[in-house]
Amino acid sequence: MPGDSLAHCLLLEFCDGLSAAAARALLAAFPDSDTCLAAGPRAWRAAGLPPAACSALAARRRRGPGREERAALERSRRVGASALPFGNAGYPALLRAISDPPPWLYLRGDPALLAGPQLAVVGSRRASALGRRATRELAGDLAQAGLTVTSGLALGIDGCAHRGALDAGGDTVAVMATGIDQVYPRRHRDLAAAIVERGCLVTELPPGAGPRRSHFPRRNRLISGLSLGTLVIEAALPSGTLLTASAAAAQGRDVFAVPWSRFHPGGRGCLQLLRDGAGLVESAADVLLALGWPGLLPPGLLKTGGAAESAAAPGAALSAPARRLLGALDAGERAPDRPALDLGESVEWVLTAAGELELAGLADRGAGGYRRLR
Amino acid sequence: MPGDSLAHCLLLEFCDGLSAAAARALLAAFPDSDTCLAAGPRAWRAAGLPPAACSALAARRRRGPGREERAALERSRRVGASALPFGNAGYPALLRAISDPPPWLYLRGDPALLAGPQLAVVGSRRASALGRRATRELAGDLAQAGLTVTSGLALGIDGCAHRGALDAGGDTVAVMATGIDQVYPRRHRDLAAAIVERGCLVTELPPGAGPRRSHFPRRNRLISGLSLGTLVIEAALPSGTLLTASAAAAQGRDVFAVPWSRFHPGGRGCLQLLRDGAGLVESAADVLLALGWPGLLPPGLLKTGGAAESAAAPGAALSAPARRLLGALDAGERAPDRPALDLGESVEWVLTAAGELELAGLADRGAGGYRRLR
Repeated sequence: MPGDSLAHCLLLEFCDGLSAAAARALLAAFPDSDTCLAAGPRAWRAAGLPPAACSALAARRRRGPGREERAALERSRRVGASALPFGNAGYPALLRAISDPPPWLYLRGDPALLAGPQLAVVGSRRASALGRRATRELAGDLAQAGLTVTSGLALGIDGCAHRGALDAGGDTVAVMATGIDQVYPRRHRDLAAAIVERGCLVTELPPGAGPRRSHFPRRNRLISGLSLGTLVIEAALPSGTLLTASAAAAQGRDVFAVPWSRFHPGGRGCLQLLRDGAGLVESAADVLLALGWPGLLPPGLLKTGGAAESAAAPGAALSAPARRLLGALDAGERAPDRPALDLGESVEWVLTAAGELELAGLADRGAGGYRRLR
Repeated sequence: MPGDSLAHCLLLEFCDGLSAAAARALLAAFPDSDTCLAAGPRAWRAAGLPPAACSALAARRRRGPGREERAALERSRRVGASALPFGNAGYPALLRAISDPPPWLYLRGDPALLAGPQLAVVGSRRASALGRRATRELAGDLAQAGLTVTSGLALGIDGCAHRGALDAGGDTVAVMATGIDQVYPRRHRDLAAAIVERGCLVTELPPGAGPRRSHFPRRNRLISGLSLGTLVIEAALPSGTLLTASAAAAQGRDVFAVPWSRFHPGGRGCLQLLRDGAGLVESAADVLLALGWPGLLPPGLLKTGGAAESAAAPGAALSAPARRLLGALDAGERAPDRPALDLGESVEWVLTAAGELELAGLADRGAGGYRRLR
């Protein structure tokens, strides 16, 4: 039937001898999967499909679906799943940009979320109480700011990320390490149902696929690949979560991490990421500012700490020297030795006071000297 | 008497009309304070001393010490203090490099520590139990590695830093915000006595000076100015400790901070420093490696976590793909698509596995591809 992407994707999924790369190339050559499959061997070959794959595909078209394919279609239909082929306009642009995007995605829920701006929020399955709290708070704030929170439906941090987004009335995407008709872990059945209702469940694995060890790293690359950046909330050393961060970095996406004390073993992985240059995330504002997302900063968020905290306290609690220097900076940029002369203080005095103003976000060190910012 | 720097510095200290800059220039022009004061007005003028200051100094030399000066000398002698003039070879080279070094330092204890390598370890007076513990551990490890721990003798983190160094059998320098004969806070009398015995107490303030608000920022610039870098253990927002960090940055020295969870108000200042680019310090090894101090790494330190942790776990707990890729990297550098062909895996697979190897410190991304490190 026209537009039945699900049947088309399953046809290609169960067609032996068709690699993921070949399937992508084939789907990308036609406006939709309907046209693609109707086109026939000559057009497929023109699209670059190898002769063997053309023959296999033609044979399958003649023969009709096999038992496995029919079972998979039945499984998908039972849960109301649909499919999003690579060539489709709704296929997520960020995912298309990774080095081996899936030739199709199976999904349940709102496919529009996949094409919108997402932030991956991930972490350990063994989450601490504070880790869970940080996750719910940050995921809630990020979701309220308009970012879809994408995670892996796992126990621990992942589950809290989805819940945090949903509880805040925001959007969430769960990338599964199973087929679209399987929920793993079982304990997250209700969560998965809520995500189908108000978010989106997605997987590249064929219907019926169970959770296998090898699925997790592949799933992780989709979590980071769908997202503008990946925020790691809690991760020990070593940790599978760090592989998601590593995939994000390899995909050219931002990596963020929540800081923890050196006494918290569950935070060691985050500290390693921070040491390696990940953006430090104390509040959602840190992520939003780093992504250049200030338009979506909810009014209250600037006051909840983090990067924006100093911005919320304009000059309050400054030392007397800093306030004096701020006054001297009113007239524009000054070299470090100019206010020194004006104020009758040493250059060191000025540097110390200016340092305080910098920390408070009230002054900025430029090439020519210090500049008042606000 | 020859070599009595203390008397000479006090003479200059109480000579009206002699600025700190003029006193520095004067002392720098002669091999020692003895020669300097004996030289007389003509030589002083040749050294650039303004005429008014020359006359004041000559008058003081004729008249002998005033009451204040005699009292200060008496105070200093009573506690066995000495003085280190700017021109002296023992004057700390790093302190000489700041923009307004004190023309002399008053000190008790071992002056050689002032010329040796120091790390400032500072933080809040209101320290948490974990902050105190982190301070004692880090200061102890840094001191054992051969760095003198320099701090401000204050309650809280400062006191723990001095104690941690002493308890580890290491060296410590306390920079006071009072005269050399005054101990502030009183509660740290025993600590100050221990530092006189096994470390060094130092101040730029004249004998008898009490703790005044304005002394603290000036003292802080000496703490950072004496040190290769400044490590902030715990600091709220706002915090005077951040001004020490700011002074360190203005002096071109490294700034380090210990990470804390976003739920710890006493750690907010540290998170702000980390966000602004301070080096993250989980263990002493992080500081030592950043300062290029690996020769002094005690054998056990590499195993206590932090930057060096991954180095201590050579390939243990790697995933199967990472182990396989590590094998493929044995023959030297490989472009990302080369092992992909050799191993029959996708480029994404390789990037993920390589990311794991990078995180474990076993492989490195170069211009031409990945390289096995160990």
